[in-house]
Amino acid sequence: MHISKFVTPEIIFGKNAIKQVGDACLRLGAKKVLIVSDYGVANAGWLDKVISICKESFLPYATHIDVTINPKDTDVVKGCRAYIENECDAIIGLGGGSALDSAKAIAILATNGGQISDYEGVDKIEKPLPPMIMIMTTAGSGSEVSQFSVIVDSKRGKKMSIISKTLVPDIAIVDPLTLVTKDSSLTAATGLDVLTHAIEAYVSTAATPLTDVQAKNALSLVSKFLRPSVASKTNEEAKEAMAMASLQAGLAFSNAILGAAHAISHAIGGKLPISHGEINAVLLPYVMDFNFIAAPERFSDIAAIMGFDLRGMSEREAGNASIQFVRDLAADIGAPHRLRDVGITEDMIDWAGQLALIDACMITNPRDVNLEQVKTLLKNAL
Amino acid sequence: MHISKFVTPEIIFGKNAIKQVGDACLRLGAKKVLIVSDYGVANAGWLDKVISICKESFLPYATHIDVTINPKDTDVVKGCRAYIENECDAIIGLGGGSALDSAKAIAILATNGGQISDYEGVDKIEKPLPPMIMIMTTAGSGSEVSQFSVIVDSKRGKKMSIISKTLVPDIAIVDPLTLVTKDSSLTAATGLDVLTHAIEAYVSTAATPLTDVQAKNALSLVSKFLRPSVASKTNEEAKEAMAMASLQAGLAFSNAILGAAHAISHAIGGKLPISHGEINAVLLPYVMDFNFIAAPERFSDIAAIMGFDLRGMSEREAGNASIQFVRDLAADIGAPHRLRDVGITEDMIDWAGQLALIDACMITNPRDVNLEQVKTLLKNAL
Repeated sequence: MHISKFVTPEIIFGKNAIKQVGDACLRLGAKKVLIVSDYGVANAGWLDKVISICKESFLPYATHIDVTINPKDTDVVKGCRAYIENECDAIIGLGGGSALDSAKAIAILATNGGQISDYEGVDKIEKPLPPMIMIMTTAGSGSEVSQFSVIVDSKRGKKMSIISKTLVPDIAIVDPLTLVTKDSSLTAATGLDVLTHAIEAYVSTAATPLTDVQAKNALSLVSKFLRPSVASKTNEEAKEAMAMASLQAGLAFSNAILGAAHAISHAIGGKLPISHGEINAVLLPYVMDFNFIAAPERFSDIAAIMGFDLRGMSEREAGNASIQFVRDLAADIGAPHRLRDVGITEDMIDWAGQLALIDACMITNPRDVNLEQVKTLLKNAL
Repeated sequence: MHISKFVTPEIIFGKNAIKQVGDACLRLGAKKVLIVSDYGVANAGWLDKVISICKESFLPYATHIDVTINPKDTDVVKGCRAYIENECDAIIGLGGGSALDSAKAIAILATNGGQISDYEGVDKIEKPLPPMIMIMTTAGSGSEVSQFSVIVDSKRGKKMSIISKTLVPDIAIVDPLTLVTKDSSLTAATGLDVLTHAIEAYVSTAATPLTDVQAKNALSLVSKFLRPSVASKTNEEAKEAMAMASLQAGLAFSNAILGAAHAISHAIGGKLPISHGEINAVLLPYVMDFNFIAAPERFSDIAAIMGFDLRGMSEREAGNASIQFVRDLAADIGAPHRLRDVGITEDMIDWAGQLALIDACMITNPRDVNLEQVKTLLKNAL
């Protein structure tokens, strides 16, 4: 085994954990916080909730909620201006991956200067970031615990993966009760993102025993609880399980990185305003089938965790079972099952394939991928 | 579920991970480090190894190796003096639990002043500690990742549990190759400590889903690999598995705390120079039997992880199987199985019971314990 590194934030998990955000900021020495969120989260009432907790803690704050899905560098610049003009010294991210990744990118610009594209890739951030407290409200991205921030370079139409240990937040707050305001299609898309994180991290070439335990537990939870979580906004057991699944999948992929599904999904998401989770969901079974020969025993593990009795099954049969499980789960919760269902057309395959090949997540895909293969993958999924 | 909190250091795990200690110190801004270790580790050559790595990194250092098993407050004062006189600004702990807990205690005194007994209990440390890098060489204590430091108050003859998030090291380095110099009896004693950490953390009243995954994986590894690790100094697969088991059990108990076996073991270890792992090993089956009624389903989980096929078994039978597994494992690796074998006599039961009741680890034991019960436990184990 190679040397494995594992980094996590301090984690505060549980119902009403959100109430600890004021105390968490003060503990980190914050004098004035910038709260980064989006309109959906604000409309659901969570921004007001966090503001009222800051007020109770006598903690001054400013807000920045100009965040879109697949968040853009231009919005990050605006957020950075809000941080500096308001003389903030700490950042709260409140929302799903878009809000949290924006909060991290604002933290980078505010202390390291330059343009966000300067930091694309691994370990490009040199100066320490301000204290970051991330409150996750989607059970999807895992950004609350990860060393990733994914931002769209709007000039190049490309998602940039910024990967650095310093992007691991200081404190991650995960409150399953924040999930009860999500509609079912968002729950489905973000939940399938969690599934993709768990599976890609588990078969990643950078997986370690420390990431494996997190990936396996996340996979077990999402296999059992994603359906009931989509079925009911108020099923608290399912919300709690999905919040934990998201967190654990985040710990897994933050340290084991991902694979071809994410590489392709980043390529497409940089140009088109399509849900990251939905693209992943469509691609995942095709990528699993392609990757099978790289790690047959890992796909048997995945099938067993999903609940299949492997006695009498070959590794190929177990692999097929795991792939069919993903298709069935996606179908049950109403996810799109072809790329054309989310607006991808044949003429996009060439640039999407080219961009996917150079995405940082492709490096840890367990099977080598060339341009022909990634284009075939995309064609099959079309 | 209550709100659960989870804190871990950055972890660097793998063969030859020790070589990264220089880089790790420099990354944390260290200008001069105090290396805290003990004579056994120094004689095995690991202190020289770390010194040579510091030299290669042009990192000035001083050393303090006056550390005994069940480390004492008086030695901590000496270590603190070495830190201050040598104008150090960071600490490397190198060794097993005794060296690492001493390193943490020196860090407390060096920056917070006063006496080490001022910090007994939970969250008594107010000022930030210097950067701490812990290199684990025993696969036992889990101190490399934990928020614990256990130091003997030599006046009172009492082990003090100092528990604080700030005691979580900045970086934990776990190099399985450091385990190949341990003799078999130390491997057995420290391995049984790992087993006790995993089981006590799993049935603790403060267990959470985040600690459970770590505890279960640690239990699975120690169940399979402790025997072969004791059998051979050079079985690298077993050493790697035990190093991971120790780390994961440490992550579990650091966040879920422990139970009655550790409370009693701390009581005895404060007065007598007996191996902590050996006392735990003797006590564990008795404590499991006593605790069974508090969490029967958890003991079924434990039996399943140990490898028992639970079909057709009652919870009581599964619980008994898990207890018998612990006895068999301890017997196979030559651990003592009565307290009298490690020098405990009947006249010690009264004070040991009284001290155990007020130990911080007793708070999270899953079954309430009164003085009569703890004394009966001790008598049974005598």
